[in-house]
Amino acid sequence: MNITQEEMMSSTMECSPVSRVVIFGGTHGNEMSGVTLAKHWLKDPSELHRTTFMAEPCLANPLAVNKCVRYIDSDLNRCFSEDVLSSADSDNDPYEFKRARELNQRYGSGCLYDFVFDLHNTTSNMGATLLRCSKDDALSLHLANYLQSSSGSVSMPCYNFLIDIPKKDNIYLQNIGKHSCCIELGPQPQGVTRADVLSRMRQLVNCGLDFLDLFNHGKEFPSFQTDIYRVLSRVDYPRDSFGEISAFIHNDLQDKDYVPLKPGDPIFTTINGEDLFYDGEKVVYPTFINEAAYYEKKVAFILTEKVSWKVPALKLKTPEDHHGTPK
Amino acid sequence: MNITQEEMMSSTMECSPVSRVVIFGGTHGNEMSGVTLAKHWLKDPSELHRTTFMAEPCLANPLAVNKCVRYIDSDLNRCFSEDVLSSADSDNDPYEFKRARELNQRYGSGCLYDFVFDLHNTTSNMGATLLRCSKDDALSLHLANYLQSSSGSVSMPCYNFLIDIPKKDNIYLQNIGKHSCCIELGPQPQGVTRADVLSRMRQLVNCGLDFLDLFNHGKEFPSFQTDIYRVLSRVDYPRDSFGEISAFIHNDLQDKDYVPLKPGDPIFTTINGEDLFYDGEKVVYPTFINEAAYYEKKVAFILTEKVSWKVPALKLKTPEDHHGTPK
Repeated sequence: MNITQEEMMSSTMECSPVSRVVIFGGTHGNEMSGVTLAKHWLKDPSELHRTTFMAEPCLANPLAVNKCVRYIDSDLNRCFSEDVLSSADSDNDPYEFKRARELNQRYGSGCLYDFVFDLHNTTSNMGATLLRCSKDDALSLHLANYLQSSSGSVSMPCYNFLIDIPKKDNIYLQNIGKHSCCIELGPQPQGVTRADVLSRMRQLVNCGLDFLDLFNHGKEFPSFQTDIYRVLSRVDYPRDSFGEISAFIHNDLQDKDYVPLKPGDPIFTTINGEDLFYDGEKVVYPTFINEAAYYEKKVAFILTEKVSWKVPALKLKTPEDHHGTPK
Repeated sequence: MNITQEEMMSSTMECSPVSRVVIFGGTHGNEMSGVTLAKHWLKDPSELHRTTFMAEPCLANPLAVNKCVRYIDSDLNRCFSEDVLSSADSDNDPYEFKRARELNQRYGSGCLYDFVFDLHNTTSNMGATLLRCSKDDALSLHLANYLQSSSGSVSMPCYNFLIDIPKKDNIYLQNIGKHSCCIELGPQPQGVTRADVLSRMRQLVNCGLDFLDLFNHGKEFPSFQTDIYRVLSRVDYPRDSFGEISAFIHNDLQDKDYVPLKPGDPIFTTINGEDLFYDGEKVVYPTFINEAAYYEKKVAFILTEKVSWKVPALKLKTPEDHHGTPK
């Protein structure tokens, strides 16, 4: 899609109706909001029923859930690469490679689901982050806008987070659906279910299903302008000559996800109390600050830029119209 | 020791000087304040030097630290039972049984250390909890009082927490020393190093070492009165007929560690929004509310009672006096 933002604003996107919706919890087995909700919905899915579809819950990594760990052999949410998905199972594969192929067969290439929700928690103060890897998914952006408008929360506001990569480089679970949204709520420690975070997650999912149902019913959604936090770079902890972490997130940065970071602001502090400063040249927006699971990925925080996007209007594609979007 | 509180108040405890001090970090491998400090002090122990002794750092569970997990096979901080310590190593032993015997040989029965610090974090809002399992350890109570007086912190105040069990039933690491104090700081997620929590932990340890040094120098410490939170009972999560957790910590209780809980106050909320209430008959003080590591131990929180204790004065035992304490 190579149209300008101005063209987008005056155009209307058309999408086919959404009939198959899956909600993954437990993609990481110790992120308890999604684990708890998926388990609950597997027992009683009545809440996921809408007049135009019935969403399906799925516990994405049941072995990791049973052990209350992020993963067994390999981070499931990094296993959806073309390479892994196109290879045959082998005995030496990490458990999660096999599981990724199973999930892809069931919800992705084998039987393409229209919308994928993937529920996560973070130890960072990320509020309700709506994470996606495609900038062209207008349906998901409208869903996010609907969540932001209909489901306000002062203590846990919604943010649009974009990992802007080509589909062929996408290694995340949400990649297998036609449209998708990863809902990432924090702060919540790994292995802990907080009632406030649980109920916020549930509210967001239900609100998202309401949106998809309204869309299926033919409701048109006008164009809008929105802030997107687009990933610029990942920043590792300072390390000593042995590779050991030698400085930690500075107190002034801790819990300041989505707060502007200016050149010269402190970002790390060494164990001996020496401050280290941000030496970039422009204001950026740090995210996933001090996320527990990112220590092993050598990520202390992820820098984003805040961009203002125009999203075109959205309407249901009528059966007669098969000429692609935008029209 | 069977003396009344009144007798205690007028008496003076005498203790031998403290020459061997050990500071354990990483007893749980994902409680990062102690892990980080122990690793730092192993590289540069200069900070642990006092005029009358040199404290020794020890990474208690190095394998768990390497994997950033609480334990490998078995919770190390429940392995210091008489049974485990008095048994010989066997091939089928959990790793932590062997490690407990090693640590006991090095710091406990093999070579009795005078003072054991054991550094922990919790995901609960426990501030700086000074946890001990002996009500008779006057040296440790004076140390706690010194920390409370000398090292104030509004955001992370010190609490005295007592698991009042006979020494023969003590299964905790701190059991191996002559005197001991477990410092438990929270909230901090597992696997995360927060600079504020790290610096508070370091401040408390240094202040504790200062106290022991003053004591060794002959400073006398007057009697005082203090609040102790003594464990009454452990409360499990409500569970369904399959043993699965069916209700979570109520929002009104979450993060309210050490806040009085009154009969009729809500404690749990089910996934369907039904509230469950505390049906005890007196005001109690809940602690370790929603601690991540206690889910597997079937503990949602630990109820304590707040008791006011008189602690007798403390002075150094002079070489001539070998007649026991209190005199």
